[in-house]
Amino acid sequence: MELRKGLEDIAVKETSITYIDGELGRLYYRGYSIFDLAEFSNFEETAYLIWYGKLPNREELSEIREKLASKRELPPSVTKYLMEIKKDSNPMDVLRTAVSMLGVEDTDNSSIMEKSISITSKIPTIIAYFLRLRRGEDIVHPDESLSHAENFYYMVNGKRPSDLESKAMNAALILHMDHEMNASTFACLVVASTLSDIYSSVVAGISALKGPLHGGANSEALKQFMEIGDKEKAEEYVLSKLTKGERLMGFGHRIYKTYDPRAKILKGYAEGITKEKGIYNLYEVAQKVEEVGVKYLGSKGIYPNVDFYSGLVFYSLGFDADMFPTIFASARVVGWTAHVMEYLRNNRLIRPKAIYVGEIGRKYVPIDDRQ
Amino acid sequence: MELRKGLEDIAVKETSITYIDGELGRLYYRGYSIFDLAEFSNFEETAYLIWYGKLPNREELSEIREKLASKRELPPSVTKYLMEIKKDSNPMDVLRTAVSMLGVEDTDNSSIMEKSISITSKIPTIIAYFLRLRRGEDIVHPDESLSHAENFYYMVNGKRPSDLESKAMNAALILHMDHEMNASTFACLVVASTLSDIYSSVVAGISALKGPLHGGANSEALKQFMEIGDKEKAEEYVLSKLTKGERLMGFGHRIYKTYDPRAKILKGYAEGITKEKGIYNLYEVAQKVEEVGVKYLGSKGIYPNVDFYSGLVFYSLGFDADMFPTIFASARVVGWTAHVMEYLRNNRLIRPKAIYVGEIGRKYVPIDDRQ
Ligand SMILES: CC(C)(COP(=O)(O)OP(=O)(O)OC[C@H]1O[C@@H](n2cnc3c(N)ncnc32)[C@H](O)[C@@H]1OP(=O)(O)O)[C@@H](O)C(=O)NCCC(=O)NCCS
Ligand SMILES: CC(C)(COP(=O)(O)OP(=O)(O)OC[C@H]1O[C@@H](n2cnc3c(N)ncnc32)[C@H](O)[C@@H]1OP(=O)(O)O)[C@@H](O)C(=O)NCCC(=O)NCCS
Repeated sequence: MELRKGLEDIAVKETSITYIDGELGRLYYRGYSIFDLAEFSNFEETAYLIWYGKLPNREELSEIREKLASKRELPPSVTKYLMEIKKDSNPMDVLRTAVSMLGVEDTDNSSIMEKSISITSKIPTIIAYFLRLRRGEDIVHPDESLSHAENFYYMVNGKRPSDLESKAMNAALILHMDHEMNASTFACLVVASTLSDIYSSVVAGISALKGPLHGGANSEALKQFMEIGDKEKAEEYVLSKLTKGERLMGFGHRIYKTYDPRAKILKGYAEGITKEKGIYNLYEVAQKVEEVGVKYLGSKGIYPNVDFYSGLVFYSLGFDADMFPTIFASARVVGWTAHVMEYLRNNRLIRPKAIYVGEIGRKYVPIDDRQ
Repeated sequence: MELRKGLEDIAVKETSITYIDGELGRLYYRGYSIFDLAEFSNFEETAYLIWYGKLPNREELSEIREKLASKRELPPSVTKYLMEIKKDSNPMDVLRTAVSMLGVEDTDNSSIMEKSISITSKIPTIIAYFLRLRRGEDIVHPDESLSHAENFYYMVNGKRPSDLESKAMNAALILHMDHEMNASTFACLVVASTLSDIYSSVVAGISALKGPLHGGANSEALKQFMEIGDKEKAEEYVLSKLTKGERLMGFGHRIYKTYDPRAKILKGYAEGITKEKGIYNLYEVAQKVEEVGVKYLGSKGIYPNVDFYSGLVFYSLGFDADMFPTIFASARVVGWTAHVMEYLRNNRLIRPKAIYVGEIGRKYVPIDDRQ
């Protein structure tokens, strides 16, 4: 039996959801280029595409909009929990718990698809409520007249987004929606393969996404830029980090051995929106880190990934740095649930093995004869 | 790239924790036969063995006992949640949420080992509190003077176990403590490999264990016996199930192609304890189902697994059938956390792939041009 640590290049399923071309740096959802979707589409439309496999027509779009808009409010037990929780709680811990609570509450017999829409609809509400409550602000209830992305912004900031903010919010969410068999999506599948429920799967996805090697990298990346502070200090910072054998956050990817296309698109939004917000200096630092990082790591196929510029965009949109992984989750939940539904159409329990390297046949001895 | 659905026979790590001999039906923890451990050991000692790799001497045993005993009480927020929750909530959903809440509460910097001990110590309290509260009974606070297994029984039943009950409880927990790379342990590892925290890992483990193909099978197995009711009806029941293409719950295993040794041991306890409880008829039904099941499925390598007789034991110990997977979790958490610690010593992100079978290069068209 061969040891396949990290499961690199092992295929665990067939999919018609997402295709990554790691050599050319291309990403497709259901065959549509991410460049087109980020530019022309919006949250509801791309979510529909990922879930149902086709772009919606007018009727289908208004139906999914209406469903996503009408399910945003949280059960009272969850809102109450968010009100009572310690303000310094880790946002991913809070999200994991709140979604788990949603699973306790949901006793109706609707399909996995309906439940997936409901969870997707509620995650921004959980995030925004917690964010405002810990700032000591009143919660802003969802507004059904707003789109998913605009409402998310509105619940966080208490006002409607500008055109650029709305565009950036939609694009950023679209770019995070799916990414084939990443660790969190795979965690969802392992859970689903036991025929557990969709809430359990999503909770496992959040649990995995929390890690700094996965969804936690976006806030780490922004923290790097803040720590550096001045673009003149970027090279020294990167070099000292790499010399110490540390990893540059927002760089590197198991599949992309060139620029992550999502990083390219987010860079554009980061430039525009940091200008609008008066924090363009952070963008300049990032740009310099990118340049230096590519200089030293590019030859090893290590380039900026999605998390490199997303933090600047999320920060400009009013989110605190430690909240970024939760925004990532609010989008990735679409991919998680789509992959679960695809896998369950032809389920097999995911049960790998380990190679035993210890002793066998040790003799049980009474406690007083032990060392 | 090859499709390896279910990851059958793919090794994801090396381990010196558990060895399964699927041909001979043998199971070893750290090299010690499960037959010896179930007979001579107890919860604390075997947990120590799995975590630390050796049987404890007197001093080490009293230290782990003390640690496990002193951390049983829940933070007030968790107890409060259990008091307010709907009584018909799914016990695994409740456990998943409560452990997730523990993660929110735990802000100290102790090691993963210390946190693992703390989680292991608290899971029985969560289970027992919820079980009694939904029955309308007062909760029974943990008693530090009792061992882990005895205290668990005590918090559920409000009285101390008989000798047989104590022995059965210890053995049943030991038998569920680890089982190499099963789906829930693997879910824990996928989460841990992103460098997420240990609570997130355990929450993912609970999420996976909930499924009827994994930890959910024990309550299903007991329900089968109750439904059959009379041993004379067992053959007809099994045949009708198999003819319909349904699975016999508590039968079959990815690794064992013969009797699961845990089933053999639990059978012995089930016989004794059902007699003590006056529900020996259920044991007789089970025995008959086993006989018939082996007759029809044995030639395909499908034999009773751990879940076949465990339900009878848990039921006799005062647990409701829908609680069985939570007891499984209360023991398996030792294996989950041990495997996470072992994996993290030489971590690699678990990130497999999918084989894309859809279209590429579809052209984005404006909404009014869509079908
Ligand atoms: C994402 C990531 C885990 C994928 O890596 P992987 O496929 O598991 O690759 P490995 O961890 O085996 O790394 C391969 C080599 O590249 C190096 N490397 C990978 N990412 C690096 C980074 N961000 N900075 C510096 N070196 C890096 C490793 O140190 C290793 O070098 P070595 O062979 O000399 O030991 C990794 O690139 C990383 O940790 N990046 C930083 C965190 C991040 O941005 N995550 C978000 C991903 S969307
Ligand atoms: C545990 C389990 C998921 C492992 O199975 P696996 O390695 O994934 O094997 P597969 O699901 O591919 O099954 C292989 C064949 O055995 C059959 N089989 C497996 N378990 C069976 C059972 N309990 N009853 C009837 N048939 C069974 C399958 O139907 C399949 O038959 P086929 O090849 O004719 O289609 C499976 O045995 C099962 O579902 N058991 C019942 C649930 C249970 O007791 N789980 C607890 C495990 S500790």
